[in-house]
Amino acid sequence: MIKLAERIVNVGMIGFGTVGGGTAKLLTDNAEIIRDRADTRIKIKRIYDKKESWAKERAVSMGLSPELFTDSVDNIIAADDIDVVVEVIGGIEPAMTYIKTAIIHGKSVVTANKDLMASFGEELLAAAEAVGVDLFFEASVAGGIPIIKAIKESLAANHFHKVMGIVNGTTNYILSEMAASGADFDVCLAQAQALGYAEANPTNDIDGLDAARKMAILASLAFNSRITADMVYVEGIKNITKWDIAYANELGYTIKLLGIAKDYEDSIEVRVHPVMISSSHPLATVNDAFNAVFVEADALGKAMFLGRGAGEMPTASAIVGDIISAGKHIVHNLGGQTSCSYFKNKRIRDIKEVECKYYLRLMVADRTMVLAHIADAIGRRDVSLDTVIQKRSVGDLAELVLITHEVKEDSMLQAIKDLNNLAVVDDVVSVIRVDDSDN
Amino acid sequence: MIKLAERIVNVGMIGFGTVGGGTAKLLTDNAEIIRDRADTRIKIKRIYDKKESWAKERAVSMGLSPELFTDSVDNIIAADDIDVVVEVIGGIEPAMTYIKTAIIHGKSVVTANKDLMASFGEELLAAAEAVGVDLFFEASVAGGIPIIKAIKESLAANHFHKVMGIVNGTTNYILSEMAASGADFDVCLAQAQALGYAEANPTNDIDGLDAARKMAILASLAFNSRITADMVYVEGIKNITKWDIAYANELGYTIKLLGIAKDYEDSIEVRVHPVMISSSHPLATVNDAFNAVFVEADALGKAMFLGRGAGEMPTASAIVGDIISAGKHIVHNLGGQTSCSYFKNKRIRDIKEVECKYYLRLMVADRTMVLAHIADAIGRRDVSLDTVIQKRSVGDLAELVLITHEVKEDSMLQAIKDLNNLAVVDDVVSVIRVDDSDN
Repeated sequence: MIKLAERIVNVGMIGFGTVGGGTAKLLTDNAEIIRDRADTRIKIKRIYDKKESWAKERAVSMGLSPELFTDSVDNIIAADDIDVVVEVIGGIEPAMTYIKTAIIHGKSVVTANKDLMASFGEELLAAAEAVGVDLFFEASVAGGIPIIKAIKESLAANHFHKVMGIVNGTTNYILSEMAASGADFDVCLAQAQALGYAEANPTNDIDGLDAARKMAILASLAFNSRITADMVYVEGIKNITKWDIAYANELGYTIKLLGIAKDYEDSIEVRVHPVMISSSHPLATVNDAFNAVFVEADALGKAMFLGRGAGEMPTASAIVGDIISAGKHIVHNLGGQTSCSYFKNKRIRDIKEVECKYYLRLMVADRTMVLAHIADAIGRRDVSLDTVIQKRSVGDLAELVLITHEVKEDSMLQAIKDLNNLAVVDDVVSVIRVDDSDN
Repeated sequence: MIKLAERIVNVGMIGFGTVGGGTAKLLTDNAEIIRDRADTRIKIKRIYDKKESWAKERAVSMGLSPELFTDSVDNIIAADDIDVVVEVIGGIEPAMTYIKTAIIHGKSVVTANKDLMASFGEELLAAAEAVGVDLFFEASVAGGIPIIKAIKESLAANHFHKVMGIVNGTTNYILSEMAASGADFDVCLAQAQALGYAEANPTNDIDGLDAARKMAILASLAFNSRITADMVYVEGIKNITKWDIAYANELGYTIKLLGIAKDYEDSIEVRVHPVMISSSHPLATVNDAFNAVFVEADALGKAMFLGRGAGEMPTASAIVGDIISAGKHIVHNLGGQTSCSYFKNKRIRDIKEVECKYYLRLMVADRTMVLAHIADAIGRRDVSLDTVIQKRSVGDLAELVLITHEVKEDSMLQAIKDLNNLAVVDDVVSVIRVDDSDN
């Protein structure tokens, strides 16, 4: 029953770190099932890694020949006997030059590089389209979750209204831990670092930059507009306290670092920041280092994709899935099917235009009529109150938790400035956006 | 920026009921975005429906010409000017003959027909592969959720260990309603019928037959073995009572009608029946008419896909996604990429070989030593107890709820027979399998 095409697909790997090693391991360990499913043999033909001696040791430990290593990347990106180039070194340069060169030499490219795709995706996709090769990047967003192919192919008949994602595992682990243990941010960050979920310098994750890159990629695909990482409004999770998590919980909400992208008639909104979502929302139950992408589209309705967003093998699953797709095209002489489909290019909304509810936590004077003063002050900025709860007393001060009705960010920022100028308000301690639009 | 290929993809539709109408509506309403994304115009060229006058009226109401209708299906399946045939009449015949004829005439086929794919999928896929056309069936399982393409393409590098699914929206609605309202099965079934979620004759859904077909399709793809609907062990939800749901909840479980497929070294297990799963399992939170498929694979790890499993537009989303894929292949002269990949064909395990925990609800004599008798009787069959709770008294009898440790179904069936023969046991009222293997 097994038919084996004569043709072998030769893979050249650039980078042999965690993800590169996982990719090689998966191609080796699952070679038989991959060959049977793809009707094709996929073979690692050549490997380039700057830290060659370290990488070689690892390759040998998984049964690969040290002879596969080359000390010149040109032997991969410009070599006649390489069909698919796998780029897993990350970062902008030299990755971009390598990928462009490989494309010019007629090679299909598989990359996990979110930084690159989030900033230069349009350019690279156009280059691949012009030559007629594939450029696949499933692993660049949400690890093993096949969300990119789903948006580009399976759901291509839909207008997407909204894409919401938990696309950074580190911050989701920290927030889940804070909620489960009641501990503060610093404690849970240290724990994430001890477990290897967070890096020694955790800025990229906790400040939301990593999530912003992934949301730029997802929003570009869903809305067919060029959205680069620098167009995404970003706030991280450093200012989330255990008190906010506890009060959110009391009010039926869960705090997540969400990427939210919405499509409007004339514009697009893309932002990454902490959000209080209803605890009954499917995204609220996504815990630990899991990722999830929730989409809303006109025909499909609401759907969610959940899985491991990082790690050696989940990422390798996405990369090898892409290699198989590219390999099938090559073996069957189908040519690439890359298309650079940023044909809408709508305007990106400024964060000040965004409308949502807000959670505010304030320390105020502990006396009568305070709430009346506050309601009056923010009312002048068109902000009205949905929920008010008085919490702890701290010394002379009382803690007040407010949830507003929907209002434009612009008005809210002015209202917060006014609150800080009120004599009865000591401090506006926390401001968190609330999204219960799916309820 | 918009490039429009010269070529138009001509679609012939067989069937213009709910799903067929939805497909036409989506192709019409979203024609522009589909053309831009596919670089191709997809056009409904001809429609065949037995109830022509009714279907014509509907087509006209959505702006389609009544001239599109033909009174001979041959004008679609054997016509030179049709590229893609969409079959949405359901059932085995005449759908199978139509599809085979279309394939022989070199047409790619898109179908939503789970009955057909679950019984004759291998035959039809082989026919499509031989001719070199596409046969796509994303809509046959879990409506709009793109699970089939995910398993076949994106996750093709993985060995799948397990596929678990809530793949029938009707039964999920009924069980969710029973849990939410505390009402009994009959009441919630009537409600589902009133809302149009359940048919007047609900057998297909509530007896698990519909879910069995979908699990046959999913398991065949995941495990690369031919699994037809009749190989799937099936039990429906008719015997689930509000008491079982309440006790499950008390014990931290939720009752769902699950399809469970597992891969073993030498064999495969595929079954559909009510299951008590941990309430913290992602599948436990899938409510109402939603569907979800949970997979576990060696590289990917655990992942879940959630969305609407039925309905006019979610199903149309899957069908049009498939039409776009088939259309792209045709326009770029790529030929079909169907492969019939049932190369493993492992043995299917008998339900008696399955091992799991069991929940039992018994009415027993309300006196001392009863539990000792019960434990002794089932112990002789290698069944041991994990949890025992005494619940209500009903007349002279006491209600006993037991959860066993893992045991083979064969032993459990014998133990239940023995229990029914015990003088102290009035009746074994409920037996429900428990799956907490993911915890």
